[in-house]
Amino acid sequence: MTKCRGEIVLMFEVKSYIQQKKQVIDTSLEKILTKSQASETLVKAMSYSLMAGGKRIRPILCLAACEAVGGVSEDAVTVACALELIHTYSLIHDDLPAMDDDQLRRGKPTCHVAFDEATAILAGDALLTLAFEVLATIPVEDGDRTARRLQVIRLISRAAGYQGMIQGQMLDIASEGHKLSAGELEAMHRLKTGALIETALTCGGLLGGADERQMSMLKGYAANIGLAFQVADDILNVEGNPELMGKAVGTDLEREKSTYPSILGVQAAREYSTKLVQSALQAIETFDKHADPLRGIASYVIERRR
Amino acid sequence: MTKCRGEIVLMFEVKSYIQQKKQVIDTSLEKILTKSQASETLVKAMSYSLMAGGKRIRPILCLAACEAVGGVSEDAVTVACALELIHTYSLIHDDLPAMDDDQLRRGKPTCHVAFDEATAILAGDALLTLAFEVLATIPVEDGDRTARRLQVIRLISRAAGYQGMIQGQMLDIASEGHKLSAGELEAMHRLKTGALIETALTCGGLLGGADERQMSMLKGYAANIGLAFQVADDILNVEGNPELMGKAVGTDLEREKSTYPSILGVQAAREYSTKLVQSALQAIETFDKHADPLRGIASYVIERRR
Repeated sequence: MTKCRGEIVLMFEVKSYIQQKKQVIDTSLEKILTKSQASETLVKAMSYSLMAGGKRIRPILCLAACEAVGGVSEDAVTVACALELIHTYSLIHDDLPAMDDDQLRRGKPTCHVAFDEATAILAGDALLTLAFEVLATIPVEDGDRTARRLQVIRLISRAAGYQGMIQGQMLDIASEGHKLSAGELEAMHRLKTGALIETALTCGGLLGGADERQMSMLKGYAANIGLAFQVADDILNVEGNPELMGKAVGTDLEREKSTYPSILGVQAAREYSTKLVQSALQAIETFDKHADPLRGIASYVIERRR
Repeated sequence: MTKCRGEIVLMFEVKSYIQQKKQVIDTSLEKILTKSQASETLVKAMSYSLMAGGKRIRPILCLAACEAVGGVSEDAVTVACALELIHTYSLIHDDLPAMDDDQLRRGKPTCHVAFDEATAILAGDALLTLAFEVLATIPVEDGDRTARRLQVIRLISRAAGYQGMIQGQMLDIASEGHKLSAGELEAMHRLKTGALIETALTCGGLLGGADERQMSMLKGYAANIGLAFQVADDILNVEGNPELMGKAVGTDLEREKSTYPSILGVQAAREYSTKLVQSALQAIETFDKHADPLRGIASYVIERRR
């Protein structure tokens, strides 16, 4: 079964799908920011980090989940953009001197290096707030869409908040210099990156009209794919090419961060990420060909070089 | 007319009204946080700043505006709490070393002093995100309330965002060490504190069923009362008793911040705040006795000692 799915994955042109959806997201994000009349430096800092060439994995997963359950991805673009606004704010704040103190992100100086620390804190705050403004900006007279949008805001705010992504970052910071078990590491990543990735998929499903069974399958896919991304990132931090990745490598080791390669070894970490991708594919194996983009993205995870 | 309104204000027991509403807000905020299962340190930091004895001016104005147009203030408590979550996050971030570098807030060490800088940044992020979670958490099947709540999220996210409060903080930081004109100072405060105060009143009005005419009057009240608060705060920073205020005084002068006393002189600043309060009262003079709390709060502004 897995072999058969593997063939479907190969047949589907995942790179051009990702490229096309990335273009849609980039164009929409640019439009959101150029509408503004706000303080020039603030908007420059927001735009600097937002348009710095991110992979747009979360919004693309959101669009692909919408399509996977038979929906039209155009209906999910606004929500997908909000997810990227939140992801970008979290990167800006995580890079701050008081947190990970990173100098380079996506091949460019981090926001607080390019501007200053106060501007970076405020740009992050502004992107987070803008995500909710974008989510709340639909015609209020549209009953069904209004109720669904409110449900989306609830899902995203929970995933991004103190019981989700932010708690994950707290655990990550607290863990520096300590050796975590594989279980502790997984629990941290499920919050720090897994919660928002899962929400990208469930929101996409919701907007595409998924039933409960489909939602549960999307969650199964999400849990595995979110962790697979993290394991692959950890491996790239050990073995990656800094020029291709646009950020420094070997930083996890320097900071004595617990990572999958440091706990399991590189080879076992690689096998683990393959196993996770297989589990992700199995979770959605009863979906029809509309889910091929989700299948393709799963395989892409372990093949990517940055 | 103003004299007559002044008598009504005196008759109304504003202190006990404020005390009673503060109790309602404090109890609701405590409930919101104790529901949580999140990382202990993070919730402690959020709670530390949220329950540090703030005056709850924004939520009280929201409840009073709801009552002023004939609504029931219970319907506005959730939204009022969300406003206080956002206000508290903005204080935590504004106090950070990279921003105002304040050591004392509401009589206690600021969040980054009591915990650490990373925790303070994340606690602020978490309070902001929680505000939207709280706003989005109502039964989705309730059509009218759903549409209104989405409208409230739109109003609040705009007021708190990069074209409102955050832009105001950018301007405030950029202005340190420069002498602003009275006009520039006012433009900055209208964004930094005025936007969220106006939203507190318009959201309260909206939830109380205000018509367009009433909304416009509430906005007139808000614009004047927001600025009056700021002028009174500036005067207290020059003349206040640090023990009563729970924070250091004279700090604006040390930082060469432009303030109303420094630009106009203390006496003229005092007269200006009185004039603003009179304008606020005039804006709502056709409202009936249900607006007495709003009238009382306006007078309270220039009488308070902290």
